[in-house]
Amino acid sequence: MLLRCGDRPGLVAATSEFLALAGANIISLDQHSTEQSGGTFVQRTIFHLPGLPAACDALSHEFAARVAVRFGMDFALTQASTPKRVAIMVSKEDHCLLDLLWRNRRGELDMSIEMVISNHPDLADQTAAFGVPFFHVPASQDVRARSEQRQLDLLSGNVDLIVLARYMQILSPPFLEAVGCPLINIHHSFLPAFIGAAPYRRAKERGVKLVGATAHYVTETLDEGPIIEQDVVRVDHRHHVGDLIRLGADVERAVLSRAVLWHCEDRIIRHGNQTIVF
Amino acid sequence: MLLRCGDRPGLVAATSEFLALAGANIISLDQHSTEQSGGTFVQRTIFHLPGLPAACDALSHEFAARVAVRFGMDFALTQASTPKRVAIMVSKEDHCLLDLLWRNRRGELDMSIEMVISNHPDLADQTAAFGVPFFHVPASQDVRARSEQRQLDLLSGNVDLIVLARYMQILSPPFLEAVGCPLINIHHSFLPAFIGAAPYRRAKERGVKLVGATAHYVTETLDEGPIIEQDVVRVDHRHHVGDLIRLGADVERAVLSRAVLWHCEDRIIRHGNQTIVF
Amino acid sequence: MLLRCGDRPGLVAATSEFLALAGANIISLDQHSTEQSGGTFVQRTIFHLPGLPAACDALSHEFAARVAVRFGMDFALTQASTPKRVAIMVSKEDHCLLDLLWRNRRGELDMSIEMVISNHPDLADQTAAFGVPFFHVPASQDVRARSEQRQLDLLSGNVDLIVLARYMQILSPPFLEAVGCPLINIHHSFLPAFIGAAPYRRAKERGVKLVGATAHYVTETLDEGPIIEQDVVRVDHRHHVGDLIRLGADVERAVLSRAVLWHCEDRIIRHGNQTIVF
Amino acid sequence: MLLRCGDRPGLVAATSEFLALAGANIISLDQHSTEQSGGTFVQRTIFHLPGLPAACDALSHEFAARVAVRFGMDFALTQASTPKRVAIMVSKEDHCLLDLLWRNRRGELDMSIEMVISNHPDLADQTAAFGVPFFHVPASQDVRARSEQRQLDLLSGNVDLIVLARYMQILSPPFLEAVGCPLINIHHSFLPAFIGAAPYRRAKERGVKLVGATAHYVTETLDEGPIIEQDVVRVDHRHHVGDLIRLGADVERAVLSRAVLWHCEDRIIRHGNQTIVF
Repeated sequence: MLLRCGDRPGLVAATSEFLALAGANIISLDQHSTEQSGGTFVQRTIFHLPGLPAACDALSHEFAARVAVRFGMDFALTQASTPKRVAIMVSKEDHCLLDLLWRNRRGELDMSIEMVISNHPDLADQTAAFGVPFFHVPASQDVRARSEQRQLDLLSGNVDLIVLARYMQILSPPFLEAVGCPLINIHHSFLPAFIGAAPYRRAKERGVKLVGATAHYVTETLDEGPIIEQDVVRVDHRHHVGDLIRLGADVERAVLSRAVLWHCEDRIIRHGNQTIVF
Repeated sequence: MLLRCGDRPGLVAATSEFLALAGANIISLDQHSTEQSGGTFVQRTIFHLPGLPAACDALSHEFAARVAVRFGMDFALTQASTPKRVAIMVSKEDHCLLDLLWRNRRGELDMSIEMVISNHPDLADQTAAFGVPFFHVPASQDVRARSEQRQLDLLSGNVDLIVLARYMQILSPPFLEAVGCPLINIHHSFLPAFIGAAPYRRAKERGVKLVGATAHYVTETLDEGPIIEQDVVRVDHRHHVGDLIRLGADVERAVLSRAVLWHCEDRIIRHGNQTIVF
Repeated sequence: MLLRCGDRPGLVAATSEFLALAGANIISLDQHSTEQSGGTFVQRTIFHLPGLPAACDALSHEFAARVAVRFGMDFALTQASTPKRVAIMVSKEDHCLLDLLWRNRRGELDMSIEMVISNHPDLADQTAAFGVPFFHVPASQDVRARSEQRQLDLLSGNVDLIVLARYMQILSPPFLEAVGCPLINIHHSFLPAFIGAAPYRRAKERGVKLVGATAHYVTETLDEGPIIEQDVVRVDHRHHVGDLIRLGADVERAVLSRAVLWHCEDRIIRHGNQTIVF
Repeated sequence: MLLRCGDRPGLVAATSEFLALAGANIISLDQHSTEQSGGTFVQRTIFHLPGLPAACDALSHEFAARVAVRFGMDFALTQASTPKRVAIMVSKEDHCLLDLLWRNRRGELDMSIEMVISNHPDLADQTAAFGVPFFHVPASQDVRARSEQRQLDLLSGNVDLIVLARYMQILSPPFLEAVGCPLINIHHSFLPAFIGAAPYRRAKERGVKLVGATAHYVTETLDEGPIIEQDVVRVDHRHHVGDLIRLGADVERAVLSRAVLWHCEDRIIRHGNQTIVF
């Protein structure tokens, strides 16, 4: 259960008391207040309740009526036993896609990869080796409206999360609005440094000593969405742009995998343009 | 409030309900179970209660009677507004001592440094510059019993924590028993590698590519106590033992400062020979 | 060109003068002395010489006669354009094997993977997908002599390097002597901590705050060979042994890949039980 | 000896042959070419030559005449035994200043700190404790010309390096031109992210998961000079701006110390807006 409301006394007690009375065993409970006082309170509660699948709706209604309404809470109740349905969108670079497919096959990521969509045919065979459907949807500025419509046909209602695993096309605001689920993107720089195209080339030109990657939720403004995870790797003058791309690829796939894992475990709460990761 | 008991349903609810009824506002609540089931449950709760200083004893008794006894809980209630009284023991190396004195002066560590005890006079002036009493208690194997008695006279009842900031003498089991408060030591290796003397020289001989430091609670067995924090720094073939000592010193002071900070914030719970750091 | 000799004045000049007179353009030149004086001098020189493939033997003889003999140098001249032939030995864990196969396909590692040998059949299909021959050679203590003979038949004379990518059998001293090429092993701990079996379980029991991996050359003494590369990842009390295994796997594959890359680029010089990595 | 010229064959050989004939023993020799071909070649050579202090000028002239002119080299010959004279400029934050003073007292940085100049009197006593002259030169936009003149009177001809250890005033282009020595600044962000004022506050607002620091040479364009060193530390949603400032301070002092050390060891070569650090 993820919940959010204005901060005030009694929130932890009210929630845990409700769950105890319902027979649930609280396994973990994390909470955070964005300010010392007067801020936003967010909480993530993991509990075990025998027979939850059947009782989930009833429990949700009861919580709404008896607790949430009193404190003005937004909340969502999800069952950890139901893996999220995920689509991966990709262009030609294979490292992020393969890492997600491989981790999922190992059972590290608790998700169901429903499909891979690419604007290039290159990665069809590698995707097929994991038994995941691959759809080639050519995309360019000319045909963007048509390709986005084709993508929407594939995605709408069928997935809970879209992962842009080095998908090098910009998605239009109407697409983002219509698709109806969150999107996580991996940007190949340490944001807010090197927003936009060719970050490794620009990193080399600027002479930075670390290059990085950033996983963030997608919003209408390019590379400006809430950051989920970042990491860096050390480079020096001997590294050419190609080396930065190679070293950065390892950071990209690690950062994206962590962000997807945390999202699938419902660990992330968006707060304005920031994230709280429990 | 730190508490620990056998894991079972209802623990979070019972605690938070008690605190809510007492008028406390729970600010944060962390908990951990050492096993999926049947393990040990530990919880750290930070709450705000107007008038706590006066009511603390009564609240503690009430919690013992109404909650703790029912669940077989060990618990401790401390007031964050009362800084811990700390003694630092040191030999000749200044880096850990100065870092603690300096961070405390900046207000980073919420503690009161009552005294510095050294078996050498070298750091007397540097300690005095921070307005902290310095006691030179010569210590060697010959006079250990006498010097430990002198140390006990200074320490007993006067401090809540002893920090061994590169104190190069071994403290006897009777001393550890008599002193009546926890001790944190910094060991200049990544434990359990290089237990004992001259870890940097042995690290060089083994040809490791990272050297580290470990802060741990002191037990009767040398370098075997519960680990609080560790970190490492990269080295290579160009580094001589002196370079390892220099680079390692930065890790030592950082690791020890974090361990002391967390202890002073009551973030650490010992569990067997491990620590839970909230 | 890698060379090694007792340290004395004039070594850099003698080498670079020889190469200049031979018409070579020195691209980079790294050197290291193990002691301030009286130690061992090692040097790695990369140079470009048109027509080297044909002239390599003659150049080598001339260098031996005119330079090496004078200074008592050991040296080796290899052509960067000839990729090393590599065999990978593996048991059931796929992460190190797949990472090497994948990086090699991307062109990151300049090597030719000649074969994969496993004591289990599990990874046959995944290896085949990369077009690399897979040999299943069952191995257990009972049949060790026979399986090692079978392995030697496959390996001898056919490879320049053997990578033990989580190969969980011990190779006998006679095998190591007979195989005639270096072996790189990945050990799933930060050596010298947790030598031997089950390092992640023991790391959990000891309560360490970082777990690591170590790539090293194989010698007759288990986990005691010269360390090539190490790295660590942060863990805490919430991580079970299974989490340590999962997080450690990422470190293992990264560390092993770097070690293999550096070996294939002739960057590593063994010196006693240490390595110099240029 | 640091040298730079257009890349072409024979550079390493010409230099090392010259030094060998002069009786010098080359201790280490690093070189780098900025491009595969046609770029800039830079080289750092450490050599030992008995009697160098007396012979340095003659050697320099001879190298110019016999080698440098032939290849169009810029070069500089400095004696490692002569420590650089350094001034530190600081405002109110003590962490970078104290770290430099302390490391220098330990003998980690081979430099002579000639003076500390501050626009505030706050750090006078702490500086005096290290036996270093402290000059309070008030500085504000109104009196900038006058205070810069006063600073120039103190600095000109007296120092080889100026370190801006959290000096929060902008120095004018005429000052930079007149002062006649390089300046190293520490910026409290991971450049090019958060150029300018209040980087930690902006980092918090952007919700980054790592904060960093950057040491760079000062040029006329604020925070745009060649980067020498950078590092980062992990933060999360629980950290307030004050925590970022505290955690970042540790990174700042570490990064600045490394940059100053490398400069004092003549390890850094500026190339356009980048640095090569050997």
